[in-house]
Amino acid sequence: MVNGVERFGVSMAPDLLSRFDEVIAARGYTNRSEAIRDIVRDYLIEQQWESGEGEVIGTLTLVYDHHEHDTMEQLTALQHHYHEAILSTLHIHLDAHHCLEVIVVRGSSTDIRRLADKVITTRGVKHGKLTCTTTGQGLA
Amino acid sequence: MVNGVERFGVSMAPDLLSRFDEVIAARGYTNRSEAIRDIVRDYLIEQQWESGEGEVIGTLTLVYDHHEHDTMEQLTALQHHYHEAILSTLHIHLDAHHCLEVIVVRGSSTDIRRLADKVITTRGVKHGKLTCTTTGQGLA
Amino acid sequence: MVNGVERFGVSMAPDLLSRFDEVIAARGYTNRSEAIRDIVRDYLIEQQWESGEGEVIGTLTLVYDHHEHDTMEQLTALQHHYHEAILSTLHIHLDAHHCLEVIVVRGSSTDIRRLADKVITTRGVKHGKLTCTTTGQGLA
Amino acid sequence: MVNGVERFGVSMAPDLLSRFDEVIAARGYTNRSEAIRDIVRDYLIEQQWESGEGEVIGTLTLVYDHHEHDTMEQLTALQHHYHEAILSTLHIHLDAHHCLEVIVVRGSSTDIRRLADKVITTRGVKHGKLTCTTTGQGLA
Repeated sequence: MVNGVERFGVSMAPDLLSRFDEVIAARGYTNRSEAIRDIVRDYLIEQQWESGEGEVIGTLTLVYDHHEHDTMEQLTALQHHYHEAILSTLHIHLDAHHCLEVIVVRGSSTDIRRLADKVITTRGVKHGKLTCTTTGQGLA
Repeated sequence: MVNGVERFGVSMAPDLLSRFDEVIAARGYTNRSEAIRDIVRDYLIEQQWESGEGEVIGTLTLVYDHHEHDTMEQLTALQHHYHEAILSTLHIHLDAHHCLEVIVVRGSSTDIRRLADKVITTRGVKHGKLTCTTTGQGLA
Repeated sequence: MVNGVERFGVSMAPDLLSRFDEVIAARGYTNRSEAIRDIVRDYLIEQQWESGEGEVIGTLTLVYDHHEHDTMEQLTALQHHYHEAILSTLHIHLDAHHCLEVIVVRGSSTDIRRLADKVITTRGVKHGKLTCTTTGQGLA
Repeated sequence: MVNGVERFGVSMAPDLLSRFDEVIAARGYTNRSEAIRDIVRDYLIEQQWESGEGEVIGTLTLVYDHHEHDTMEQLTALQHHYHEAILSTLHIHLDAHHCLEVIVVRGSSTDIRRLADKVITTRGVKHGKLTCTTTGQGLA
């Protein structure tokens, strides 16, 4: 971190604190402050997606059968249409029929939700999920 | 709090901290430590429900039409069968047809989930949701 | 149901249908049509809460320690201030310290969310959760 | 679809059906049967992740600062250690500091959750989320 760190105190009953320490250790944290920062960031990112303000990052996870309909062509057409919002796409051949595609999108949460609806409702897409994350700005 | 409080330090980049302060103020918190305790408790309660260990509290929210089928009789029978787990029930007449019922249940998360499935799948129940909370033990 | 029922056909691959039948039977459904109606209602209620349109019902589940601060007085004051939105309250004494309170609220999803924030952030409330449900209108 | 389709009837009150038609049209569906299949698949995939049975696919979305600590080295080491579970990784340079990484994982839901915890709690990872999807098997 380039520009300094602030430090503040949190008070907690001993019972609550010892349970917290247990749970975060089981999850793999080696440091209480790190765990709290992670929980705080998650809380802020959720709030940012709800508020619709600023720029966020979404990842769209899709599973489809490339033999069915013209799903692949339609998904490609959609992605070209929205190429300014789409940062990158990962494609995996799961088996003879199924493809997994992860599409990374950048924009306002409202725009990303609309694009996600279009992609997920495309005929032939068997499962689609939008994951909400962050550009990292202001979350050092 | 009767039995003492521990205090520990959390370090955070200034940007992250100022956004956190903004969001919690908008939600109504007057105190950073209080907000962090609430987020930590929510994190621990989620983990407790996942682990299936210990005793938890659930509230089951149902909407049904008391004119349809014998929904009411079936729900009453179910509640008597599980009376040891059920702490209390609140019933509201929403309109000429619809009832809202909130059933408070105590037990292991596995048992509560099983009971919730039974209640929610009862014919005539239009909407049912299980809310996961805590007995308050160890979360002072 | 008073006013008739419409019937429409759904086509599904045999594999998908047989897995669906298995899962809903395990949950307690005796009828495929009933399970689909429940899933559809849940989908619509979620959408209604997101859209902010129309009137919905929320239940607020709280756990607090009635010995701490003046939590109880503040919660009572809040509920009186918002008495037009609050339909009913259920109170349970969990142990010597802890109270569980379920508050049933009616209004627009935006108003209910704002009230929920106020209640959940009240000092002394250890855990608070808002559950989103419906007045039952149009979901027969 | 290669191997036949089954067709079954669903009965619904006219009000419920017309609201469903409205909402799915707004989302982009052109076909009621297609919307119901999507909702059913989502319901089954959720259930499969809860049950822990069979093989599922997860995508892990991470945002981290590649200047901080040795986050990148640790993430690479973790991925090599679990190389049998990891299908592919997509890496995007968000700005001068921030990286987005999407890791696609295959295995039991329990194993994937454990790996996700390890990755998300790695020092320097600012935000991490696990998305639950499917291999597509049996969900035609």
